[in-house]
Amino acid sequence: MKWGEMMPKVALVMGSDSDFPQLEACVKTLKQFGVEVDARVISAHRTPDEAHAFAVGAADAGYEVILAAAGKAAHLAGVLAAFTVMPVIGIPMPATQLDGMDALLSMVQMPPGIPVATVTIGGAVNAALLAVQILSVKHADLRQKLIDHRAVMRTGVIEKDKQVAQRAAAL
Amino acid sequence: MKWGEMMPKVALVMGSDSDFPQLEACVKTLKQFGVEVDARVISAHRTPDEAHAFAVGAADAGYEVILAAAGKAAHLAGVLAAFTVMPVIGIPMPATQLDGMDALLSMVQMPPGIPVATVTIGGAVNAALLAVQILSVKHADLRQKLIDHRAVMRTGVIEKDKQVAQRAAAL
Amino acid sequence: MKWGEMMPKVALVMGSDSDFPQLEACVKTLKQFGVEVDARVISAHRTPDEAHAFAVGAADAGYEVILAAAGKAAHLAGVLAAFTVMPVIGIPMPATQLDGMDALLSMVQMPPGIPVATVTIGGAVNAALLAVQILSVKHADLRQKLIDHRAVMRTGVIEKDKQVAQRAAAL
Amino acid sequence: MKWGEMMPKVALVMGSDSDFPQLEACVKTLKQFGVEVDARVISAHRTPDEAHAFAVGAADAGYEVILAAAGKAAHLAGVLAAFTVMPVIGIPMPATQLDGMDALLSMVQMPPGIPVATVTIGGAVNAALLAVQILSVKHADLRQKLIDHRAVMRTGVIEKDKQVAQRAAAL
Amino acid sequence: MKWGEMMPKVALVMGSDSDFPQLEACVKTLKQFGVEVDARVISAHRTPDEAHAFAVGAADAGYEVILAAAGKAAHLAGVLAAFTVMPVIGIPMPATQLDGMDALLSMVQMPPGIPVATVTIGGAVNAALLAVQILSVKHADLRQKLIDHRAVMRTGVIEKDKQVAQRAAAL
Amino acid sequence: MKWGEMMPKVALVMGSDSDFPQLEACVKTLKQFGVEVDARVISAHRTPDEAHAFAVGAADAGYEVILAAAGKAAHLAGVLAAFTVMPVIGIPMPATQLDGMDALLSMVQMPPGIPVATVTIGGAVNAALLAVQILSVKHADLRQKLIDHRAVMRTGVIEKDKQVAQRAAAL
Amino acid sequence: MKWGEMMPKVALVMGSDSDFPQLEACVKTLKQFGVEVDARVISAHRTPDEAHAFAVGAADAGYEVILAAAGKAAHLAGVLAAFTVMPVIGIPMPATQLDGMDALLSMVQMPPGIPVATVTIGGAVNAALLAVQILSVKHADLRQKLIDHRAVMRTGVIEKDKQVAQRAAAL
Amino acid sequence: MKWGEMMPKVALVMGSDSDFPQLEACVKTLKQFGVEVDARVISAHRTPDEAHAFAVGAADAGYEVILAAAGKAAHLAGVLAAFTVMPVIGIPMPATQLDGMDALLSMVQMPPGIPVATVTIGGAVNAALLAVQILSVKHADLRQKLIDHRAVMRTGVIEKDKQVAQRAAAL
Repeated sequence: MKWGEMMPKVALVMGSDSDFPQLEACVKTLKQFGVEVDARVISAHRTPDEAHAFAVGAADAGYEVILAAAGKAAHLAGVLAAFTVMPVIGIPMPATQLDGMDALLSMVQMPPGIPVATVTIGGAVNAALLAVQILSVKHADLRQKLIDHRAVMRTGVIEKDKQVAQRAAAL
Repeated sequence: MKWGEMMPKVALVMGSDSDFPQLEACVKTLKQFGVEVDARVISAHRTPDEAHAFAVGAADAGYEVILAAAGKAAHLAGVLAAFTVMPVIGIPMPATQLDGMDALLSMVQMPPGIPVATVTIGGAVNAALLAVQILSVKHADLRQKLIDHRAVMRTGVIEKDKQVAQRAAAL
Repeated sequence: MKWGEMMPKVALVMGSDSDFPQLEACVKTLKQFGVEVDARVISAHRTPDEAHAFAVGAADAGYEVILAAAGKAAHLAGVLAAFTVMPVIGIPMPATQLDGMDALLSMVQMPPGIPVATVTIGGAVNAALLAVQILSVKHADLRQKLIDHRAVMRTGVIEKDKQVAQRAAAL
Repeated sequence: MKWGEMMPKVALVMGSDSDFPQLEACVKTLKQFGVEVDARVISAHRTPDEAHAFAVGAADAGYEVILAAAGKAAHLAGVLAAFTVMPVIGIPMPATQLDGMDALLSMVQMPPGIPVATVTIGGAVNAALLAVQILSVKHADLRQKLIDHRAVMRTGVIEKDKQVAQRAAAL
Repeated sequence: MKWGEMMPKVALVMGSDSDFPQLEACVKTLKQFGVEVDARVISAHRTPDEAHAFAVGAADAGYEVILAAAGKAAHLAGVLAAFTVMPVIGIPMPATQLDGMDALLSMVQMPPGIPVATVTIGGAVNAALLAVQILSVKHADLRQKLIDHRAVMRTGVIEKDKQVAQRAAAL
Repeated sequence: MKWGEMMPKVALVMGSDSDFPQLEACVKTLKQFGVEVDARVISAHRTPDEAHAFAVGAADAGYEVILAAAGKAAHLAGVLAAFTVMPVIGIPMPATQLDGMDALLSMVQMPPGIPVATVTIGGAVNAALLAVQILSVKHADLRQKLIDHRAVMRTGVIEKDKQVAQRAAAL
Repeated sequence: MKWGEMMPKVALVMGSDSDFPQLEACVKTLKQFGVEVDARVISAHRTPDEAHAFAVGAADAGYEVILAAAGKAAHLAGVLAAFTVMPVIGIPMPATQLDGMDALLSMVQMPPGIPVATVTIGGAVNAALLAVQILSVKHADLRQKLIDHRAVMRTGVIEKDKQVAQRAAAL
Repeated sequence: MKWGEMMPKVALVMGSDSDFPQLEACVKTLKQFGVEVDARVISAHRTPDEAHAFAVGAADAGYEVILAAAGKAAHLAGVLAAFTVMPVIGIPMPATQLDGMDALLSMVQMPPGIPVATVTIGGAVNAALLAVQILSVKHADLRQKLIDHRAVMRTGVIEKDKQVAQRAAAL
């Protein structure tokens, strides 16, 4: 970012604080890219008024993307998406015996009109990266950071490639 | 009901008017028991303000039970249940290629605190009967009507029993 | 309740005593709302006569709602519902390798005529709350208690909201 | 069978007369083996007293095996099995959008103590053959009939084998 | 059994010795009913000739029922059933990450002509009881033993019923 | 858009031209919002070089978002996402007997590092709307268009609400 | 192939002649590559002796690969694989209400020791191509034919690419 | 192999080094058969260029078969298969909460034209054996080794058979 530019800002909303440990990687990844993130606990069912108020005010609060993580019958992402036109990323959490399949279907199968951009079950890092990718459409500097991040990942895989070749040869 | 008593009243809310043909049996069953029913199309996602207003005002409007039918990522029942403490019956509609399994999980897997009384996928009649059963806790006359309804069903099965015995004997 | 009124009473029937630890929260929640609850172990398959006698006599015994918890091919709720017209709430228990999906389908997919009000897999608290919601149609004091309970839940979420915001900021 | 021997007798119980067309092959197969079969419509939920009476009296009525066909939350086989110790064969019927998976799990996942011998979804013929196999443990003549039936099936497959070889060669 | 009668005899065939610990209850239950049982490890895939030889000779070896337990793509029951007309009971074992769903479908979905009497996933006891029920069609003394066994189960449930009532009252 | 501004541009890539009829609504929706869209048939498996060339050159070609629709083992979205850092929206197509569940899991379950923003199975319209929402982060005029579109949807639901109320009253 | 070389030969075995129409494309694809193919109907369950004889003699009969297509509890591929060490390709057929998921799991989840090379549900063409790929390890001329086949497929996709671009532009 | 013959060579490619421990048995089995194996870590998504380069050069590098192991949305096998005509064996890894079902469907459900020979979820040994079976079409010595390996497996099962018979007799 050039001088005077504001950091892009997103909100990470979770349906329960019990989801937070699995979402720390999401917060860290966003910060690593220089994206400001506010983490919130808002329940579509237990604090529906707060959900409404948050989503309606999200644009004025300066958020450009909302990330919503929830398990079970995961309505959070859809409920927020109903009150805002900014992109909403859904993270299905594996909170029940059904291993997140209930949360996945509750998030991704949105009816026509109100989409939720759903990522991997428990996909905290992927949600963060998708948010950065969306922001990079506007914030050009993030595009280069994403390219750099991929290079780092690539280097990591190549390093592991060598290690595994050796481990296999030694068997 | 004795003279002067009001008919019990429920609301049947559906997420899309395309669900209505499958729900006609629900309306008819309720009327058959003398339960007044208002049918509504309210979308948790496309008319969220109407959903909020409806649920908040449902008690004052005289409803005693809400029936909510929706398909796909069926948030309707849960969204309404978040704004009222009256019983909410969920009818998962088989609106997608997933045959209602998405709607079932989106309805029944509600997180602790806000239950939805979920019935059979596409279970229009069962939702109506469950509503009558719930109302019968208060409205004693409905209890007898339910017992009579069961007797009619029983008679129907016994009649079919005789017919099938003959059809099988003739094979 | 006013002086002279009886406490509303429900029965919590489970298919096996091994389900009891997961159902303690159900009993406690009911008691917390001033609802009297009798906990029973009745097996639809191993004590079918007891199941029949219980369901047939449930109304005379003063129960207004039955809660039925069972795992595997969970017939208990449906079997009880066949012998009474009072509302039957089904709690699918995750008792097998199939994580409660077998119990869920065995409970919720009831044929037309005999509904079971099914809640979340393992949803002991939600079953209790649904019972209170159903009772509140008749017992007006429960309605206010439910509203108060929601306020307490809301306060809890709002408190967690603040904590998570701080934990995320500290990452 | 030798002179003076009674034909073995079974009952085919279905939860709904709408299942009958799919079960005609079951009746015909049983008759083809010289097994007497009574076809019944008994609903575990809509005629539970009839289900109880039937199962309790099944042995005295001369039945040696019960076949029970049902769809949805298919409790019929389990409910009958709870009241008799004779073998109960379950036929899960594909009566819903879930294609019989609900009926399969509702039948096969019986808790310890009360087994149901479950066959293929919609497996009318296999249920009949399993009944004959069970009867053949006692009725020795059925054993030879089963061996003959297999020979006929084998001949049929071998005939098809030749036809397909020619059809493929002609492509 | 009267003097001079032979004990009924069954074979319990498993696809891998790793299944044996879960099947001990099957062996014990059979013995408890006075049924002689030979336990075998025969793999449909790794010892197919043994499987063939076993099934072809099963009747001459005096077996009246075969119980077959296998996991994964559980072909064992079907393969044995193809070579004998005596009843084959299938026990789907939860041997993989798919929790026995693969074994269940591989066993129960047999094509027309060759049924497998499938029981609960991991249902060692139910398989034994089903075998005894099948044998009881011929061996009349087993019928009474099954009735007695049900009485014992019933007494056990009734005892647990009392205990749970007290535990719930104490909460 | 003001004078001189370029229309935002996206690519809609499908794995097979047989998907096109289901995707027409996607193209129309994008055009309705003034978003330029190029429709392409590129197979991750049959034209992998084209897939690589397209994704690597997508940014220079002026695309800001890629929409990728595919059925079966739907690798297309993931393969394109591997070669670009712009947002990739995945549309799982119900192309097989598995009703799109295979495509859904093949798209949404992306490993950490390369997200795909997955929408409803067969969700052509939702994919278009999600693309517009993502573009609206940069292109402010789209934000108002989205708000207007929601108002139109809302009006449509409210109109249906009235119609259904009348249809139900007439039953 | 050079003069004097024999055509490579495979067998396509199906469990039922009702599968043949869906498998014609398999036969045609093999012939198109110059691979000789014998089509057979052999049932693992109804003609197990033929299955055994076929598999044991497959190598001497000159087959280099076996393709096995079956639906339901699809044991055919595994049963053949148990009697030969040549590669066995499994084609799960969507023959039941479960849409081939039963056949897929029955084929692919083979226990350690006896693999089945499983392809797409109903994947007649893919099975043929996999057979050619396996044969091409030995028969070098097939390798070039496969490369040519891919070029043809690529050309087809590129042609469709142009058509769809035009169709979309015209919307 | 005769003097002067080269050892057959395969590549085992995995999407992540975290898969290696589960794949050691694959490497060991291949070596046990005298098949040279190079183990690689190549990610279809994080090192797509390496995946492309590897697959394109696989034939020239002397590989005759590729084994590809991956979890989640397992694109690796399909991506490699798109760039080579040699046989590609897919090993779905159980890397997520969905227990490998996501990986299985992502691998096996390949569209027409590009097959992947898919084995058991987590089937490291079966993948190795399938590779040896494919190689044995060309390398005749491997055929005998496979027959010997089966004999060893058979002996193992027969040994276990005796042990289990004794353990069961002792119960």
